[in-house]
Amino acid sequence: MQRLAFWFEFASTYSYLSAMRVDALAAEAGVAIDWRPFLLGPIFAAQGWPTSPFNLYPAKGRYMVRDIERIAAARGLAFRLPDPFPQNGLLAARLARLGRDEGWVAPFAREVYRAEFAEGRDIADRTTLAEILEGLGLEPEVCFRAAENDAIRAALRADTAEATALGLFGAPSFVTADGELFWGDDRLEQALAHALTRCTPTSTT
Amino acid sequence: MQRLAFWFEFASTYSYLSAMRVDALAAEAGVAIDWRPFLLGPIFAAQGWPTSPFNLYPAKGRYMVRDIERIAAARGLAFRLPDPFPQNGLLAARLARLGRDEGWVAPFAREVYRAEFAEGRDIADRTTLAEILEGLGLEPEVCFRAAENDAIRAALRADTAEATALGLFGAPSFVTADGELFWGDDRLEQALAHALTRCTPTSTT
Repeated sequence: MQRLAFWFEFASTYSYLSAMRVDALAAEAGVAIDWRPFLLGPIFAAQGWPTSPFNLYPAKGRYMVRDIERIAAARGLAFRLPDPFPQNGLLAARLARLGRDEGWVAPFAREVYRAEFAEGRDIADRTTLAEILEGLGLEPEVCFRAAENDAIRAALRADTAEATALGLFGAPSFVTADGELFWGDDRLEQALAHALTRCTPTSTT
Repeated sequence: MQRLAFWFEFASTYSYLSAMRVDALAAEAGVAIDWRPFLLGPIFAAQGWPTSPFNLYPAKGRYMVRDIERIAAARGLAFRLPDPFPQNGLLAARLARLGRDEGWVAPFAREVYRAEFAEGRDIADRTTLAEILEGLGLEPEVCFRAAENDAIRAALRADTAEATALGLFGAPSFVTADGELFWGDDRLEQALAHALTRCTPTSTT
Protein backbone atom coordinates (compact mmCIF):
# COMPACT_ATOMS: atom_id res chain seq x y z
CA MET A 1 0.00 0.00 0.00
CA GLN A 2 1.31 3.45 -0.87
CA ARG A 3 1.93 5.76 2.07
CA LEU A 4 1.42 9.46 2.62
CA ALA A 5 2.78 11.37 5.62
CA PHE A 6 0.33 13.87 7.12
CA TRP A 7 2.29 16.48 9.09
CA PHE A 8 0.03 18.41 11.45
CA GLU A 9 0.37 21.10 14.09
CA PHE A 10 -2.28 21.47 16.78
CA ALA A 11 -2.38 25.28 16.61
CA SER A 12 -3.19 25.15 12.88
CA THR A 13 -6.76 25.75 11.71
CA TYR A 14 -6.10 24.26 8.27
CA SER A 15 -4.68 21.12 9.93
CA TYR A 16 -8.07 20.79 11.65
CA LEU A 17 -9.78 20.71 8.25
CA SER A 18 -7.46 17.95 7.04
CA ALA A 19 -7.54 15.92 10.26
CA MET A 20 -11.32 15.59 9.95
CA ARG A 21 -11.21 14.16 6.42
CA VAL A 22 -7.80 12.67 5.68
CA ASP A 23 -8.54 9.11 6.82
CA ALA A 24 -11.81 8.85 4.85
CA LEU A 25 -10.22 10.21 1.65
CA ALA A 26 -7.13 8.03 2.06
CA ALA A 27 -9.22 4.88 2.64
CA GLU A 28 -11.18 5.64 -0.54
CA ALA A 29 -7.94 6.16 -2.47
CA GLY A 30 -6.25 3.10 -0.94
CA VAL A 31 -3.42 5.08 0.65
CA ALA A 32 -2.08 4.55 4.19
CA ILE A 33 -1.73 7.75 6.23
CA ASP A 34 1.17 8.25 8.62
CA TRP A 35 0.03 10.86 11.17
CA ARG A 36 3.06 13.03 12.02
CA PRO A 37 2.66 15.59 14.80
CA PHE A 38 5.23 18.40 14.73
CA LEU A 39 5.78 21.91 16.05
CA LEU A 40 5.66 24.94 13.78
CA GLY A 41 6.86 27.27 16.54
CA PRO A 42 10.59 26.57 16.03
CA ILE A 43 10.19 26.76 12.23
CA PHE A 44 8.35 30.09 12.46
CA ALA A 45 10.89 31.40 14.99
CA ALA A 46 13.74 30.51 12.61
CA GLN A 47 12.19 32.76 9.96
CA GLY A 48 11.69 35.59 12.43
CA TRP A 49 8.05 35.05 13.37
CA PRO A 50 7.42 35.15 17.14
CA THR A 51 3.79 33.99 16.68
CA SER A 52 1.32 32.82 14.04
CA PRO A 53 1.47 34.71 10.71
CA PHE A 54 -2.30 35.12 11.15
CA ASN A 55 -1.57 37.35 14.13
CA LEU A 56 1.44 39.06 12.58
CA TYR A 57 -0.52 39.96 9.43
CA PRO A 58 -4.07 40.93 10.51
CA ALA A 59 -5.58 41.04 6.98
CA LYS A 60 -4.38 37.48 6.45
CA GLY A 61 -5.73 36.48 9.86
CA ARG A 62 -9.20 37.92 9.16
CA TYR A 63 -9.23 36.19 5.78
CA MET A 64 -8.21 32.86 7.30
CA VAL A 65 -11.13 32.92 9.73
CA ARG A 66 -13.61 33.64 6.93
CA ASP A 67 -12.00 31.05 4.63
CA ILE A 68 -12.22 28.36 7.32
CA GLU A 69 -15.82 29.36 8.17
CA ARG A 70 -16.86 28.91 4.55
CA ILE A 71 -15.08 25.59 4.08
CA ALA A 72 -16.23 24.21 7.45
CA ALA A 73 -19.83 25.19 6.66
CA ALA A 74 -19.64 23.46 3.28
CA ARG A 75 -18.33 20.30 4.98
CA GLY A 76 -20.79 20.38 7.88
CA LEU A 77 -18.02 21.02 10.42
CA ALA A 78 -18.37 23.35 13.38
CA PHE A 79 -15.73 26.09 13.68
CA ARG A 80 -14.88 28.39 16.51
CA LEU A 81 -11.57 30.19 16.93
CA PRO A 82 -10.19 29.43 20.42
CA ASP A 83 -9.00 32.21 22.70
CA PRO A 84 -6.05 32.64 22.84
CA PHE A 85 -5.14 31.93 19.25
CA PRO A 86 -2.82 30.25 18.52
CA GLN A 87 -3.21 27.71 21.30
CA ASN A 88 -0.18 26.22 23.00
CA GLY A 89 -0.19 22.70 21.57
CA LEU A 90 3.08 21.45 23.03
CA LEU A 91 1.64 18.93 25.51
CA ALA A 92 -0.96 17.77 22.99
CA ALA A 93 1.84 17.26 20.43
CA ARG A 94 3.89 15.24 22.92
CA LEU A 95 0.85 13.08 23.65
CA ALA A 96 0.21 12.65 19.92
CA ARG A 97 3.85 11.62 19.47
CA LEU A 98 3.35 9.00 22.16
CA GLY A 99 0.11 7.97 20.49
CA ARG A 100 1.97 7.46 17.23
CA ASP A 101 4.18 4.89 18.95
CA GLU A 102 1.21 3.29 20.66
CA GLY A 103 -1.30 3.32 17.78
CA TRP A 104 -3.85 5.92 18.92
CA VAL A 105 -2.52 9.09 17.30
CA ALA A 106 -5.34 9.58 14.75
CA PRO A 107 -8.38 9.38 17.05
CA PHE A 108 -6.53 11.40 19.69
CA ALA A 109 -5.61 14.15 17.23
CA ARG A 110 -9.16 14.34 15.87
CA GLU A 111 -10.55 14.76 19.40
CA VAL A 112 -8.00 17.46 20.24
CA TYR A 113 -8.92 19.36 17.06
CA ARG A 114 -12.63 18.97 17.80
CA ALA A 115 -12.19 20.35 21.34
CA GLU A 116 -10.04 23.23 20.06
CA PHE A 117 -11.76 24.34 16.86
CA ALA A 118 -15.32 23.02 17.13
CA GLU A 119 -15.77 23.82 20.82
CA GLY A 120 -13.17 26.58 21.29
CA ARG A 121 -11.65 24.83 24.33
CA ASP A 122 -8.13 25.30 25.70
CA ILE A 123 -5.94 22.39 24.61
CA ALA A 124 -3.07 23.44 26.86
CA ASP A 125 -5.37 22.55 29.79
CA ARG A 126 -4.61 19.11 31.22
CA THR A 127 -8.28 18.63 32.11
CA THR A 128 -9.27 18.92 28.45
CA LEU A 129 -6.55 16.50 27.40
CA ALA A 130 -7.33 14.06 30.23
CA GLU A 131 -10.98 13.92 29.17
CA ILE A 132 -9.93 13.13 25.60
CA LEU A 133 -7.52 10.41 26.72
CA GLU A 134 -10.18 8.87 28.97
CA GLY A 135 -12.65 8.94 26.09
CA LEU A 136 -10.20 6.78 24.15
CA GLY A 137 -9.95 4.29 27.03
CA LEU A 138 -6.47 5.47 28.08
CA GLU A 139 -5.09 6.31 31.54
CA PRO A 140 -4.44 10.10 31.49
CA GLU A 141 -1.81 10.17 34.26
CA VAL A 142 0.15 7.31 32.69
CA CYS A 143 -0.01 9.05 29.30
CA PHE A 144 1.10 12.44 30.70
CA ARG A 145 4.10 10.83 32.43
CA ALA A 146 5.10 8.94 29.26
CA ALA A 147 4.56 11.98 27.00
CA GLU A 148 6.74 14.20 29.19
CA ASN A 149 9.68 11.87 29.54
CA ASP A 150 12.94 12.57 27.74
CA ALA A 151 12.41 10.00 24.99
CA ILE A 152 9.18 11.53 23.68
CA ARG A 153 10.50 15.09 24.01
CA ALA A 154 13.57 14.10 21.99
CA ALA A 155 11.47 12.22 19.42
CA LEU A 156 9.25 15.27 18.87
CA ARG A 157 12.31 17.52 18.53
CA ALA A 158 13.81 15.09 15.99
CA ASP A 159 10.53 15.00 14.04
CA THR A 160 10.44 18.79 13.90
CA ALA A 161 14.03 18.78 12.60
CA GLU A 162 12.98 16.16 10.02
CA ALA A 163 10.08 18.42 8.97
CA THR A 164 12.51 21.30 8.43
CA ALA A 165 14.82 19.05 6.40
CA LEU A 166 11.85 17.98 4.24
CA GLY A 167 11.24 21.67 3.45
CA LEU A 168 8.10 22.12 5.56
CA PHE A 169 7.20 25.71 6.41
CA GLY A 170 3.52 25.38 7.32
CA ALA A 171 0.76 22.94 8.21
CA PRO A 172 -0.86 20.77 7.19
CA SER A 173 1.79 19.36 4.89
CA PHE A 174 1.73 16.07 3.03
CA VAL A 175 4.87 14.23 1.92
CA THR A 176 4.89 11.26 -0.45
CA ALA A 177 7.36 8.37 -0.30
CA ASP A 178 9.33 9.94 -3.18
CA GLY A 179 9.66 13.24 -1.30
CA GLU A 180 7.03 15.41 -3.00
CA LEU A 181 5.75 18.07 -0.61
CA PHE A 182 2.18 19.37 -0.71
CA TRP A 183 1.14 22.24 1.57
CA GLY A 184 -2.36 22.98 2.73
CA ASP A 185 -5.68 21.23 3.13
CA ASP A 186 -6.47 22.27 -0.44
CA ARG A 187 -3.63 20.08 -1.74
CA LEU A 188 -4.78 16.86 0.00
CA GLU A 189 -6.48 15.37 -3.06
CA GLN A 190 -3.44 16.16 -5.22
CA ALA A 191 -1.11 14.59 -2.62
CA LEU A 192 -3.19 11.39 -2.51
CA ALA A 193 -3.19 11.19 -6.31
CA HIS A 194 0.57 11.68 -6.37
CA ALA A 195 1.07 9.02 -3.67
CA LEU A 196 -0.72 6.51 -5.90
CA THR A 197 1.17 7.35 -9.09
CA ARG A 198 4.63 7.76 -7.64
CA CYS A 199 6.08 4.94 -9.74
CA THR A 200 4.94 6.70 -12.91
CA PRO A 201 5.51 10.35 -12.04
CA THR A 202 3.71 12.97 -14.11
CA SER A 203 6.08 14.95 -16.28
CA THR A 204 6.86 18.47 -15.20
CA THR A 205 8.58 21.28 -17.03
CA MET B 1 -25.21 38.67 -14.99
CA GLN B 2 -23.34 38.21 -11.72
CA ARG B 3 -19.90 39.78 -11.53
CA LEU B 4 -16.64 38.68 -9.97
CA ALA B 5 -13.61 40.95 -9.61
CA PHE B 6 -10.30 39.26 -10.45
CA TRP B 7 -7.47 41.19 -8.78
CA PHE B 8 -4.10 40.30 -10.28
CA GLU B 9 -0.49 41.37 -9.91
CA PHE B 10 1.97 40.81 -12.74
CA ALA B 11 4.78 39.59 -10.49
CA SER B 12 2.56 36.82 -9.10
CA THR B 13 3.00 33.26 -10.32
CA TYR B 14 -0.39 32.16 -8.97
CA SER B 15 -2.04 35.09 -10.80
CA TYR B 16 -0.58 33.59 -14.00
CA LEU B 17 -2.39 30.33 -13.30
CA SER B 18 -5.70 32.15 -12.84
CA ALA B 19 -5.26 34.53 -15.77
CA MET B 20 -4.95 31.57 -18.13
CA ARG B 21 -8.24 29.99 -17.03
CA VAL B 22 -10.51 32.56 -15.41
CA ASP B 23 -12.39 33.64 -18.55
CA ALA B 24 -13.15 30.08 -19.67
CA LEU B 25 -14.39 29.03 -16.21
CA ALA B 26 -16.41 32.23 -15.79
CA ALA B 27 -18.05 31.83 -19.22
CA GLU B 28 -19.04 28.28 -18.31
CA ALA B 29 -20.48 29.49 -14.99
CA GLY B 30 -22.19 32.51 -16.53
CA VAL B 31 -20.25 35.04 -14.48
CA ALA B 32 -18.74 38.29 -15.83
CA ILE B 33 -15.10 38.87 -14.82
CA ASP B 34 -13.84 42.33 -14.01
CA TRP B 35 -10.04 42.23 -14.54
CA ARG B 36 -8.46 44.44 -11.85
CA PRO B 37 -4.69 45.05 -12.07
CA PHE B 38 -3.10 46.20 -8.82
CA LEU B 39 0.28 46.41 -7.13
CA LEU B 40 1.21 44.16 -4.24
CA GLY B 41 4.46 46.04 -3.58
CA PRO B 42 2.89 48.77 -1.43
CA ILE B 43 0.77 46.19 0.45
CA PHE B 44 3.82 43.99 1.13
CA ALA B 45 5.87 47.04 2.13
CA ALA B 46 3.17 48.08 4.62
CA GLN B 47 3.56 44.74 6.37
CA GLY B 48 7.33 45.01 6.41
CA TRP B 49 8.23 42.94 3.35
CA PRO B 50 10.74 44.62 1.03
CA THR B 51 10.28 41.90 -1.64
CA SER B 52 8.24 38.81 -2.45
CA PRO B 53 7.61 36.46 0.51
CA PHE B 54 8.93 33.72 -1.81
CA ASN B 55 12.33 35.41 -1.65
CA LEU B 56 12.10 36.32 2.04
CA TYR B 57 11.22 32.73 3.00
CA PRO B 58 13.32 30.39 0.82
CA ALA B 59 11.53 27.15 1.84
CA LYS B 60 8.25 28.74 0.77
CA GLY B 61 9.84 29.98 -2.45
CA ARG B 62 11.19 26.53 -3.37
CA TYR B 63 7.80 25.02 -2.63
CA MET B 64 5.98 27.62 -4.74
CA VAL B 65 8.10 26.78 -7.80
CA ARG B 66 7.41 23.05 -7.42
CA ASP B 67 3.70 23.65 -6.73
CA ILE B 68 3.34 25.80 -9.86
CA GLU B 69 5.34 23.27 -11.93
CA ARG B 70 2.98 20.48 -10.92
CA ILE B 71 -0.21 22.49 -11.51
CA ALA B 72 1.03 23.97 -14.81
CA ALA B 73 2.00 20.48 -16.04
CA ALA B 74 -1.44 19.12 -15.15
CA ARG B 75 -3.06 21.99 -17.09
CA GLY B 76 -0.75 21.79 -20.09
CA LEU B 77 0.76 25.21 -19.34
CA ALA B 78 4.44 26.03 -19.77
CA PHE B 79 6.21 27.45 -16.71
CA ARG B 80 9.54 29.13 -16.33
CA LEU B 81 10.53 31.40 -13.45
CA PRO B 82 11.83 34.69 -14.89
CA ASP B 83 15.13 36.16 -13.73
CA PRO B 84 14.96 38.39 -11.76
CA PHE B 85 12.04 37.19 -9.71
CA PRO B 86 9.85 38.99 -8.87
CA GLN B 87 9.69 41.02 -12.06
CA ASN B 88 9.02 44.73 -11.96
CA GLY B 89 5.44 44.86 -13.27
CA LEU B 90 4.75 48.56 -12.75
CA LEU B 91 4.63 49.62 -16.41
CA ALA B 92 2.70 46.48 -17.36
CA ALA B 93 0.19 47.25 -14.58
CA ARG B 94 -0.23 50.84 -15.81
CA LEU B 95 -0.82 49.54 -19.33
CA ALA B 96 -3.32 46.99 -18.01
CA ARG B 97 -5.10 49.79 -16.13
CA LEU B 98 -5.35 51.72 -19.38
CA GLY B 99 -6.53 48.54 -21.10
CA ARG B 100 -9.28 48.20 -18.52
CA ASP B 101 -10.62 51.61 -19.57
CA GLU B 102 -10.21 50.77 -23.24
CA GLY B 103 -11.47 47.19 -23.24
CA TRP B 104 -8.29 45.19 -23.90
CA VAL B 105 -7.13 44.37 -20.39
CA ALA B 106 -7.78 40.59 -20.48
CA PRO B 107 -5.92 39.66 -23.70
CA PHE B 108 -3.10 42.07 -22.78
CA ALA B 109 -2.71 40.57 -19.31
CA ARG B 110 -2.71 37.01 -20.68
CA GLU B 111 0.06 37.89 -23.15
CA VAL B 112 2.14 39.58 -20.44
CA TYR B 113 1.81 36.50 -18.23
CA ARG B 114 2.70 34.21 -21.12
CA ALA B 115 5.84 36.22 -21.92
CA GLU B 116 6.84 36.33 -18.24
CA PHE B 117 6.06 32.84 -16.97
CA ALA B 118 5.91 30.63 -20.08
CA GLU B 119 8.89 32.25 -21.84
CA GLY B 120 10.77 33.73 -18.88
CA ARG B 121 11.01 37.15 -20.55
CA ASP B 122 11.54 40.50 -18.83
CA ILE B 123 8.21 42.34 -18.60
CA ALA B 124 9.83 45.56 -17.40
CA ASP B 125 11.41 45.77 -20.88
CA ARG B 126 9.51 48.13 -23.18
CA THR B 127 10.40 45.99 -26.20
CA THR B 128 8.57 43.01 -24.70
CA LEU B 129 5.53 45.14 -23.89
CA ALA B 130 5.58 46.88 -27.28
CA GLU B 131 5.52 43.50 -29.04
CA ILE B 132 2.52 42.44 -26.98
CA LEU B 133 0.66 45.70 -27.68
CA GLU B 134 1.39 45.40 -31.38
CA GLY B 135 0.15 41.82 -31.37
CA LEU B 136 -3.17 43.15 -30.09
CA GLY B 137 -3.34 45.71 -32.90
CA LEU B 138 -2.48 48.65 -30.62
CA GLU B 139 0.03 51.49 -31.09
CA PRO B 140 2.76 50.91 -28.48
CA GLU B 141 3.99 54.51 -28.25
CA VAL B 142 0.47 55.87 -27.87
CA CYS B 143 -0.25 53.29 -25.18
CA PHE B 144 2.98 54.02 -23.26
CA ARG B 145 2.22 57.75 -23.27
CA ALA B 146 -1.35 57.21 -22.08
CA ALA B 147 -0.32 54.62 -19.45
CA GLU B 148 2.29 56.94 -17.96
CA ASN B 149 0.15 60.03 -17.70
CA ASP B 150 -1.04 61.27 -14.33
CA ALA B 151 -4.61 59.99 -14.70
CA ILE B 152 -3.62 56.33 -15.11
CA ARG B 153 -0.94 56.54 -12.41
CA ALA B 154 -3.53 57.99 -10.02
CA ALA B 155 -6.14 55.40 -11.04
CA LEU B 156 -3.73 52.54 -10.35
CA ARG B 157 -2.82 54.05 -6.97
CA ALA B 158 -6.53 54.39 -6.12
CA ASP B 159 -7.16 50.78 -7.17
CA THR B 160 -4.33 49.57 -4.94
CA ALA B 161 -5.84 51.56 -2.05
CA GLU B 162 -9.21 49.96 -2.84
CA ALA B 163 -7.57 46.52 -2.77
CA THR B 164 -6.18 47.25 0.68
CA ALA B 165 -9.59 48.45 1.87
CA LEU B 166 -11.16 45.23 0.56
CA GLY B 167 -8.73 43.27 2.75
CA LEU B 168 -6.48 41.99 -0.03
CA PHE B 169 -3.04 40.81 1.05
CA GLY B 170 -2.00 38.63 -1.88
CA ALA B 171 -2.77 37.72 -5.47
CA PRO B 172 -4.74 36.50 -7.20
CA SER B 173 -7.76 37.56 -5.19
CA PHE B 174 -11.41 37.34 -6.14
CA VAL B 175 -14.11 39.58 -4.69
CA THR B 176 -17.82 39.03 -5.17
CA ALA B 177 -20.42 41.82 -5.41
CA ASP B 178 -21.37 41.20 -1.77
CA GLY B 179 -17.77 41.65 -0.63
CA GLU B 180 -16.65 38.04 -0.09
CA LEU B 181 -12.91 37.72 -0.59
CA PHE B 182 -11.25 34.58 -1.98
CA TRP B 183 -7.47 34.34 -2.15
CA GLY B 184 -5.50 32.12 -4.48
CA ASP B 185 -5.94 30.31 -7.78
CA ASP B 186 -7.19 27.33 -5.77
CA ARG B 187 -10.22 29.35 -4.61
CA LEU B 188 -11.38 30.39 -8.11
CA GLU B 189 -14.07 27.70 -8.40
CA GLN B 190 -15.39 28.55 -4.94
CA ALA B 191 -15.45 32.27 -5.79
CA LEU B 192 -17.42 31.63 -8.99
CA ALA B 193 -19.90 29.46 -7.10
CA HIS B 194 -20.30 32.16 -4.47
CA ALA B 195 -20.77 34.86 -7.13
CA LEU B 196 -23.70 32.87 -8.52
CA THR B 197 -25.37 32.17 -5.18
CA ARG B 198 -24.85 35.52 -3.56
CA CYS B 199 -28.57 36.19 -3.22
CA THR B 200 -28.99 33.01 -1.17
CA PRO B 201 -25.77 32.95 0.86
CA THR B 202 -24.68 29.65 2.40
CA SER B 203 -24.97 29.67 6.17
CA THR B 204 -21.78 30.02 8.14
CA THR B 205 -21.12 29.42 11.80
